[in-house]
Amino acid sequence: MGPKKILLTEDQMPRQWYNILADIKLNPPLGPDGNPIGPESLAPVFPMNIIEQEVSTERWIDIPEEVLGIYKIWRPTPLVRATALEKVLKTPARIYFKYEGASPPGSHKPNTAVPQAYYNKEFGIKKITTETGAGQWGSALSFACAQFGLECEIYMVRISFDQKPYRKNMMEAWGGKCIPSPSPATKVGREILEKDPNTPGSLGIAISEAIEAAVTDPSGKTRYSLGSVLNHVMMHQTVIGLEAKKQLEAINEYPDIIIGCAGGGSNFAGISFPFVLDKINGKQIEIYPVEPAACPTLTKGPFVYDHGDIARMTPLLPMHSLGHAFVPPPMHAGGLRYHGMSPTVSQLVSEGLIEAKSVTQLASYKAGVLLARTEGIIPAPETNHTLACVIDEANKAREEGKEKVILFNWSGHGLLDLAAYGKYFQGELKDFELSDAEMEKSEQVFANFPKPKLLKSR
Amino acid sequence: MGPKKILLTEDQMPRQWYNILADIKLNPPLGPDGNPIGPESLAPVFPMNIIEQEVSTERWIDIPEEVLGIYKIWRPTPLVRATALEKVLKTPARIYFKYEGASPPGSHKPNTAVPQAYYNKEFGIKKITTETGAGQWGSALSFACAQFGLECEIYMVRISFDQKPYRKNMMEAWGGKCIPSPSPATKVGREILEKDPNTPGSLGIAISEAIEAAVTDPSGKTRYSLGSVLNHVMMHQTVIGLEAKKQLEAINEYPDIIIGCAGGGSNFAGISFPFVLDKINGKQIEIYPVEPAACPTLTKGPFVYDHGDIARMTPLLPMHSLGHAFVPPPMHAGGLRYHGMSPTVSQLVSEGLIEAKSVTQLASYKAGVLLARTEGIIPAPETNHTLACVIDEANKAREEGKEKVILFNWSGHGLLDLAAYGKYFQGELKDFELSDAEMEKSEQVFANFPKPKLLKSR
Repeated sequence: MGPKKILLTEDQMPRQWYNILADIKLNPPLGPDGNPIGPESLAPVFPMNIIEQEVSTERWIDIPEEVLGIYKIWRPTPLVRATALEKVLKTPARIYFKYEGASPPGSHKPNTAVPQAYYNKEFGIKKITTETGAGQWGSALSFACAQFGLECEIYMVRISFDQKPYRKNMMEAWGGKCIPSPSPATKVGREILEKDPNTPGSLGIAISEAIEAAVTDPSGKTRYSLGSVLNHVMMHQTVIGLEAKKQLEAINEYPDIIIGCAGGGSNFAGISFPFVLDKINGKQIEIYPVEPAACPTLTKGPFVYDHGDIARMTPLLPMHSLGHAFVPPPMHAGGLRYHGMSPTVSQLVSEGLIEAKSVTQLASYKAGVLLARTEGIIPAPETNHTLACVIDEANKAREEGKEKVILFNWSGHGLLDLAAYGKYFQGELKDFELSDAEMEKSEQVFANFPKPKLLKSR
Repeated sequence: MGPKKILLTEDQMPRQWYNILADIKLNPPLGPDGNPIGPESLAPVFPMNIIEQEVSTERWIDIPEEVLGIYKIWRPTPLVRATALEKVLKTPARIYFKYEGASPPGSHKPNTAVPQAYYNKEFGIKKITTETGAGQWGSALSFACAQFGLECEIYMVRISFDQKPYRKNMMEAWGGKCIPSPSPATKVGREILEKDPNTPGSLGIAISEAIEAAVTDPSGKTRYSLGSVLNHVMMHQTVIGLEAKKQLEAINEYPDIIIGCAGGGSNFAGISFPFVLDKINGKQIEIYPVEPAACPTLTKGPFVYDHGDIARMTPLLPMHSLGHAFVPPPMHAGGLRYHGMSPTVSQLVSEGLIEAKSVTQLASYKAGVLLARTEGIIPAPETNHTLACVIDEANKAREEGKEKVILFNWSGHGLLDLAAYGKYFQGELKDFELSDAEMEKSEQVFANFPKPKLLKSR
């Protein structure tokens, strides 16, 4: 038996991110007129150096030294052999996980928050705005902005703001300003509050407020930041998979199966894209994004053009979608409650390079508790979905008598989600079923939009 | 500039704990009759293999393989150079910290919880009881018991139980049973509830209930566990300092100053005792335990014989004490709200081998926020006391123009203490002053107890 944790030194950290746009084709984003939009139309929202990354087709992009310097606060993250889990499952599979809960905010999110803060600072920006639902992304960006001396303004969905004061305190500890959304600080916020002063808010409203706050700042020194979905975000996260590859190489292993949960797609992309490259080059690997059965974007939503937000402020993106007005049931895995999916992840599904799975809420918590009691770490509710799929595959390997190597991404710890575990133990969590009628209704919103082409990268 | 983090491989982990009882003399614990007690009198409370460790004077004690196996979930912990802090302080000091927040429960506590669970299991014990105030220790023991398949029953001070549901959820995630104290489950609990059904509870009551539950279990398969103060607990924590020593050696550094906060003394003992050995052997090092000004056990309490608990169930221990009935003000660093201090730490103070410092609450939180915004990690409120002292020493080094090497123990992260940070930002935290009259009054409880001798180890 080898070591429990396979570590890399800071010298062994990847020096470049992997950009999957060098290896797959995407349908272009479309503007309101239905025509492809150019990078310049995004300039009021994002700094130009990030927009260049968003559209780049270079395969390898250098990670700036300053970003590596901050990554070193918690990276390289360990690759851990889940020996205790293997033992209770009596599986011949060898199971490894990349532990991304080691970052100060507790998830993989700072992998992109840090470079985004860096590029904004390089471009002369003084303040970044963003939205946050459950609070993971807002905390990660607040952490990153503190490292570069940038202001950070986070519009947090009001109901989460009220229910999760810890997340707000966390953002404040790093100097971020956390504003309940809708707020009187923006035009869109004021309009909504006038109609419904007691609205709980929504991610759609918060996005609209954050974008408005960025584009209307008269100084021109404010930009907006997004924590998932976009190409550059997926790319920044590939540091996870690139490290994992080196770590597995060091012990002469290569994965047969790769698993990561998918909400907007970024933690899944992080662990899997470097291996998707190998698969494109002929390797045999099963790669599974896992989503909640209550928000089955990849497993039930069609591949269409749709908006990334309910307020329709974003361009039309080619992706699997449940419809931009879809409101997922109130299940406790905030990071997976998103109607759409990263265009790159969606494209890989449409080409059959990866195969989506879905997991119910109760099955996910059951898996999370088993992992807490074996591997010792309490997982984030999002990670629980990954774990349920990992356990399924490990059981399958036992039934088949096969020594498979399973790699998964432990995207975060659950220390700020313990209330949801409490509800699970009290029997207060339930599964959600979506009816076909509900699905059909929510999908009407993109019925009249252009359709993406079926592209083949090979 | 070297690496940000100095890592050890699992192969480089210490294989033995350092037992300071080989190098210092202690006054013996006394029974109710004022005579020294023998190990056998503790047998109903602790398993005999732990009692043997408690009284051993062997300098090096082997760490069992099974304990090393669980340590590997998070150990060796990184030694981190606080480069960002050095920069903002413009100090010539080189500052290093051992990061113990990396453990699944988020603090140094599992360093002793894991061996305690292991030795209980080895001794044939099926269930461990303990008390917990803020919840750190209860979570650590719950985590450790899950690893060895032991039952864990935690009596949590009722007011904390009600105010900090996350900690209870955490214990439950690891399979622990968390009971608000006082409870109807014990005789002492029933008596107290009868007199005052609405009592908020206290650590003293919780200790009494946990001990009663252990010693009255008719199966004889239940024992009690303590998370600090005792000799074996201090010893288990030395894995921290032994690792730090190897890590500093690897970069040719040796500390001039060592700092750790002290409540019962265990995280301080963990980082410092292996270096105290060097000091006994002639090395020049300043070693500072740091306590809250609101609970100044070492800086203001005398060196006496006193009970470890308010209910006077423990033997009389030779230690600095504010009196076993002392109730510290409600400051937000639960782990430092203890009237007494480990006999070993107390002995080192009385011999002048270490020098205690105290820090006010507001100064501690100010330091914590600076660290969150520089080194990126949100510290536990206990750690904040360490940090305030570190900053003082780093500033002193700047004023003196000296390149001092400062080592400190980052005992835990503050992710479950964010509510206290919220209060700090709202201006709702305050400093506490203890009057001489209050001190004098609280110290009357040990006026008639025997006095410890002034022993010199060298």
